[in-house]
Amino acid sequence: MKISARNQIKGTVTNVKDGAVNAQVTVDIGGGNTVVSSITLESVKNLGIAVGKEVTVIVKASDVMLGA
Amino acid sequence: MKISARNQIKGTVTNVKDGAVNAQVTVDIGGGNTVVSSITLESVKNLGIAVGKEVTVIVKASDVMLGA
Amino acid sequence: MKISARNQIKGTVTNVKDGAVNAQVTVDIGGGNTVVSSITLESVKNLGIAVGKEVTVIVKASDVMLGA
Amino acid sequence: MKISARNQIKGTVTNVKDGAVNAQVTVDIGGGNTVVSSITLESVKNLGIAVGKEVTVIVKASDVMLGA
Amino acid sequence: MKISARNQIKGTVTNVKDGAVNAQVTVDIGGGNTVVSSITLESVKNLGIAVGKEVTVIVKASDVMLGA
Amino acid sequence: MKISARNQIKGTVTNVKDGAVNAQVTVDIGGGNTVVSSITLESVKNLGIAVGKEVTVIVKASDVMLGA
Repeated sequence: MKISARNQIKGTVTNVKDGAVNAQVTVDIGGGNTVVSSITLESVKNLGIAVGKEVTVIVKASDVMLGA
Repeated sequence: MKISARNQIKGTVTNVKDGAVNAQVTVDIGGGNTVVSSITLESVKNLGIAVGKEVTVIVKASDVMLGA
Repeated sequence: MKISARNQIKGTVTNVKDGAVNAQVTVDIGGGNTVVSSITLESVKNLGIAVGKEVTVIVKASDVMLGA
Repeated sequence: MKISARNQIKGTVTNVKDGAVNAQVTVDIGGGNTVVSSITLESVKNLGIAVGKEVTVIVKASDVMLGA
Repeated sequence: MKISARNQIKGTVTNVKDGAVNAQVTVDIGGGNTVVSSITLESVKNLGIAVGKEVTVIVKASDVMLGA
Repeated sequence: MKISARNQIKGTVTNVKDGAVNAQVTVDIGGGNTVVSSITLESVKNLGIAVGKEVTVIVKASDVMLGA
């Protein structure tokens, strides 16, 4: 399935930190950059998210702010 | 000013495409990755966004989805 | 690719209304309900969105409010 | 009060799952579709959300992605 | 209808600026503060938004960032 | 750093309520209005958020709905 979100960047999971309902997943996207994603524990299970897994980071363009 | 958003990645503007109210700004964040941001034309002016300018891409962790 | 967003509902495109940068896409999800999505014209092209096409409506649980 | 959000769909609460701060509320919107909403426990109380209650699911068009 | 969003502040519309698909509506919320909202032109019509009209500004807590 | 988000309102923290992963921060923005923000505990620490601290409330125009 292709998705309408403009930003889709491949990376590798380096950390999964479980909370009560959500997990914070850290993804290394190369170039010295990491991205932190907050998703539900159910999604972590459904997608088989674990350290070392290759994932795609997905962000809509309207959710990206700029600072300068 | 420091911001509460978890993801703040430095990059360089490579393209600015003006619409009626919003602009689509493309930012090279290194590692072969680019990020597209949709912000208002007023913000483009206020922040002096232009090709070659160094900016910070800002995204909340709750706005980052994962695909796998 | 599986996506972490909790809400993924199948439907059929019934209308595509182009703006300057974005399009408003109406999707019939059955049960007498339609959903309106605002996505970029580029995404409309990339995904081949057109009237009659079967698509999946994707919404994060944290983007769903309730009224009562 | 009328709301500016484009998507407002009526349904019936079928499940409420409490977390530490947020609850996950499942709403049957008919046509075999359910929608999951993540709202605060305080909102659950304020709105009297409980299984069987009729509610309106509210989502902005810009928060709806499409997959195809 | 009561809404689950945590922030609901009353104010008066002071400006409506139409774009191609969206309008930018400025609302005076008192205390010297104004809030800018981007909503569809259809919502502007449906809600009868015009200068001088009393409205409620609605924002989810998860959409509020802090700077310090 | 200047930010592209259209709404940036100064205020004073009046309450910080810690959850498992997130905190709910209440900010008095004057004019009898308060705003509730949900941010991560890590951001609370990083920004030194505490009762009495002056902060800036940041919200994108596209995250502001109107009721009327």
